[in-house]
Amino acid sequence: MLIRPAIQDDSDAIWAIIGPTIRAGDTYTIDPDITEEAAKARWLGRDRETFVAVEDGKIVGTYYIRPNQEGGGNHVANCGYMTAQAEAGRGVARRMGEHSMEHARGRGFHAMVFNFVVGSNDRAVRLWQSLGFAIVGRVPGAFRHPTLGYVDALVMFRSL
Amino acid sequence: MLIRPAIQDDSDAIWAIIGPTIRAGDTYTIDPDITEEAAKARWLGRDRETFVAVEDGKIVGTYYIRPNQEGGGNHVANCGYMTAQAEAGRGVARRMGEHSMEHARGRGFHAMVFNFVVGSNDRAVRLWQSLGFAIVGRVPGAFRHPTLGYVDALVMFRSL
Repeated sequence: MLIRPAIQDDSDAIWAIIGPTIRAGDTYTIDPDITEEAAKARWLGRDRETFVAVEDGKIVGTYYIRPNQEGGGNHVANCGYMTAQAEAGRGVARRMGEHSMEHARGRGFHAMVFNFVVGSNDRAVRLWQSLGFAIVGRVPGAFRHPTLGYVDALVMFRSL
Repeated sequence: MLIRPAIQDDSDAIWAIIGPTIRAGDTYTIDPDITEEAAKARWLGRDRETFVAVEDGKIVGTYYIRPNQEGGGNHVANCGYMTAQAEAGRGVARRMGEHSMEHARGRGFHAMVFNFVVGSNDRAVRLWQSLGFAIVGRVPGAFRHPTLGYVDALVMFRSL
């Protein structure tokens, strides 16, 4: 699997991955009704670096990395990751997670934080824990899951 | 003290309050070098409602309220508050805090969260605790304080 910076020409393949996840509305706090154009513009925004994971010439995952905050908070990285639904469970997210930590170190970030991991997203929580992230916060009922109702949002963190 | 919605004509008075706090860079993760124009545009942005606290015709504080997240996270409110430095300690922030909770209830928000309270900002932490907020998260060293070095960022929460 190759992980490389995304280019504008990847945007349709990226949408094919992020679109179903955004529309499902059960793991990310992006408006499920966001337009394709707006979602692409955000995922590939100038406030971040965006990568794609490529296998046999096909984009199977994508992630972005950016400073978690401006000013006094810009030494901590924040990322978002999505894997093609057909590729789930094959380690794509893990590879992207490892790549993002390495990239973050190279960029001089001291740590990485996920501000809003949906508590019902067991697969994500376990993955990040296995990659050294700890749950450092829990916001009660902060996410309205489309089928489960209100679930907690987790803050997950690790030093780099 | 009157608390009312901010109007565009308030922007110079708002800058007189938020400018010194932003430039100091010790409590908010806004780039301390942000331009006055950009700071005003953000504080009065269309993604939020902005209020001013007025005493004897003078603006002594300002706050904004917005959904903490989009999509499944938009039932929780997020706010930012700043008080004129000359007015600190006189209860302006407390009044704005109370006003914001009442306003948030009226808007149908279920809860309120502050995602990034700088841990060294004792006055703010104590104020929010006294208004019913609990510390539900702590991100180690997430804020680079200009004189104290790396300090934790706190997540503070209360139901409404």
